Amino acid sequence: MHLDIASLRAAYLNRALTPVQLMRTLATRIHAEDDHHIWIHRLSLEEMLAYAEKLEAQDPASLPLYGIPFAIKDNIDLAGCPTTAACPAYAYTPAQHATVVAKLIAAGAIPVGKTNMDQFATGLVGTRSPYGACKNSIDPEYISGGSSSGSAVAVALGLVSFSLGTDTAGSGRIPAAFNNLVGVKPTCGLLSTQGMIPACRSLDCMSIFALNTDDAEAVLQVAQGQDTLDPYSRATPASACSTFPPAFHFGVPMPQQCAFFGNSETPRLFTQAIASLEALGGTKVEIDFSVFLETARLLYEGAIVAERYAAIRPFIEQQPHSLHPVTRRIIEGARQFSAADAYDTLYRLQANRASAADTWQQVDVLVTPTAGTIFTIAEVEEDPVNTNSQLGYYTNFMNLLDLSAIAVPAGFQHNGLPFGITLCAPAFHDHALLQLAKRWEHLS
Amino acid sequence: MHLDIASLRAAYLNRALTPVQLMRTLATRIHAEDDHHIWIHRLSLEEMLAYAEKLEAQDPASLPLYGIPFAIKDNIDLAGCPTTAACPAYAYTPAQHATVVAKLIAAGAIPVGKTNMDQFATGLVGTRSPYGACKNSIDPEYISGGSSSGSAVAVALGLVSFSLGTDTAGSGRIPAAFNNLVGVKPTCGLLSTQGMIPACRSLDCMSIFALNTDDAEAVLQVAQGQDTLDPYSRATPASACSTFPPAFHFGVPMPQQCAFFGNSETPRLFTQAIASLEALGGTKVEIDFSVFLETARLLYEGAIVAERYAAIRPFIEQQPHSLHPVTRRIIEGARQFSAADAYDTLYRLQANRASAADTWQQVDVLVTPTAGTIFTIAEVEEDPVNTNSQLGYYTNFMNLLDLSAIAVPAGFQHNGLPFGITLCAPAFHDHALLQLAKRWEHLS
Repeated sequence: MHLDIASLRAAYLNRALTPVQLMRTLATRIHAEDDHHIWIHRLSLEEMLAYAEKLEAQDPASLPLYGIPFAIKDNIDLAGCPTTAACPAYAYTPAQHATVVAKLIAAGAIPVGKTNMDQFATGLVGTRSPYGACKNSIDPEYISGGSSSGSAVAVALGLVSFSLGTDTAGSGRIPAAFNNLVGVKPTCGLLSTQGMIPACRSLDCMSIFALNTDDAEAVLQVAQGQDTLDPYSRATPASACSTFPPAFHFGVPMPQQCAFFGNSETPRLFTQAIASLEALGGTKVEIDFSVFLETARLLYEGAIVAERYAAIRPFIEQQPHSLHPVTRRIIEGARQFSAADAYDTLYRLQANRASAADTWQQVDVLVTPTAGTIFTIAEVEEDPVNTNSQLGYYTNFMNLLDLSAIAVPAGFQHNGLPFGITLCAPAFHDHALLQLAKRWEHLS
Repeated sequence: MHLDIASLRAAYLNRALTPVQLMRTLATRIHAEDDHHIWIHRLSLEEMLAYAEKLEAQDPASLPLYGIPFAIKDNIDLAGCPTTAACPAYAYTPAQHATVVAKLIAAGAIPVGKTNMDQFATGLVGTRSPYGACKNSIDPEYISGGSSSGSAVAVALGLVSFSLGTDTAGSGRIPAAFNNLVGVKPTCGLLSTQGMIPACRSLDCMSIFALNTDDAEAVLQVAQGQDTLDPYSRATPASACSTFPPAFHFGVPMPQQCAFFGNSETPRLFTQAIASLEALGGTKVEIDFSVFLETARLLYEGAIVAERYAAIRPFIEQQPHSLHPVTRRIIEGARQFSAADAYDTLYRLQANRASAADTWQQVDVLVTPTAGTIFTIAEVEEDPVNTNSQLGYYTNFMNLLDLSAIAVPAGFQHNGLPFGITLCAPAFHDHALLQLAKRWEHLS
């Protein structure tokens, strides 16, 4: 059974399937042995059926996500289920859904469980969790990517149609690339972050993993929208861009600024991706990627890590031993920074934003590998910080520079592991990026 | 001789006056004994004449500020003159004008000197300067207000037509109120801050003191505009508001939220001002001012003071004794705050911004006293911190909430000291506020 939204919707509209039937089938898969370490909490069959049964009285055509199963990263609230952020000692059970979860459920989607993640959304690897290192859906020796690890693998292994992740440094894109999925990293503020445990509150966003761009768009349409409960929520401005010109210009970093970290295949896959974008009518423009790279380094090398400290301050001060040792070391690093350091970082960021804005005078969209390479779980465990940094090379600048982005599949290495590219543009180009990603997908 | 722009311009156009003649007359006044402690550095007659002589070959009609003399707060660069920020040990001599200064000079304006100020623009009193406490233009026993003290008094005493100040907490509005002037506090980013010593870099703006609203508008038209040299510079959005409806709604704080600090006359003057605004066609709406007051307190009571520390960090660490003792105590207070504290403050500010935005659903403009009272120099010297805080009651929230504002005269106490009100609105309502202030001025 294909879980893409179009297939399920057709089956519902033809009365070939009901949500209750789907849940009975899926529950068996979901409750099977969790070899990949996908889940932190799975809903019981009875809980899933309770959602499904509520839909039976409704017309499938009336709800855009009627009977569509989804998974939720475990730093996002689902009422009545514990939220842990992959830290059991931190767990609480919310009485309310996060705003976006409530919208999805109201649109007919059915939550089935809370997914594993790099603790407190700190990491791009998927291994920093007391619930086990999340395994890649294609080759379990490899990492799933993180921090939204379980959410990506649940979609890739056909347990749900889509899932919610979060993305501060790349957590919604790296796992998409490593599991051959579409990953939407919306403009910050487009999706409410109410009911989500912050990583860096001023830079967080919720993200979407989907099997294809049509599904991603369907979910984004439901999930987006201003929320008075989230002070970082933003209204979509009148100037929001919904499509790029057919003869678009796309920027790529200069060759010497592209890093593949020794991978012998990904350079060729990226070159092929560029050729495909040219086949779509795009004109390649090599741009100076320096300011993006310098901004990326700000995220972990400067005072911004203090946002992660601020997010869990009373907890980390009272129960430091409850944290994963790598996560603890990173977040406690924030203690060295003063308030003046934090402002200095903000000034540098503001200067970089102004400088990076020049890029959009030259190109409509910027294209990079989503990640230059992929690691085995063993490689990450041996050198957890450097491998993680290398994965953030093309991702860490995105929210700092207030960009919108979409990660899309872009071929496979000979070992079967996927490669992906990310298309990005200024804030509120989310729907333009989706349209371009659809053209890319149809070409592939 | 009246120094308002219309009078000077008429004299120039009629060939009744030349810039050289004006400078010869003014130089005598400017170089007289500086009883009020207005100046830190005065241009020599020869330097003034050099500017004036360059204008002689030009058509007075061709330059909007042809031959208009102005003063510059001494935290803004005038090429070739020392910039001190009222801290002699900090002085440097810039090779370039600040962007706004260059624009004004290119438009025909003539700089005559650099003005006294609260050191490093930290204060609303005008007494925190090694160059002497700046005295009120109407009663020298009283404070001039600060931090842009000398700039206001130079205009009020007829030494220049207008002046540049800066305004982070209220430094462009309090001295306007205390010297019966118009004070424009533009939207942050509307005027470039390039060439200005930061107070709180993320919250600073340059401000304008003028004798009337026409003059303020003429100067603002020249001074405004995006500047690639200033990362905080902003383009005016298409949604910028240039006028309020004739039947506008104006908010005032609820009576129990209005503070006059024991002054027996200013409550009556504020009530009169409200009646005048109603006579202009405005409808009064009492609003809950709590979020504005809470935001105001954030400016000095929280981690934001670390912006002031960051602005002069190497200097204050190497030469702490070079600072004014009150200024030093305030800025060194920043050392107690961590980077996590800074982010916590930013989150609170973001929440307050979202909350304050509701106000603009109810009213077009918010009206408050510019200051609830005024103090003598002796009173401020006796209790420098509390008096200063009381002056910031109605001003400190403005830039934190990204508002535009204009301070206008609003009558006199029986002792001859002036009272003023401030009109404010969201960002990029600068010209709408000026139009409303013109209607107010014509009524007065």
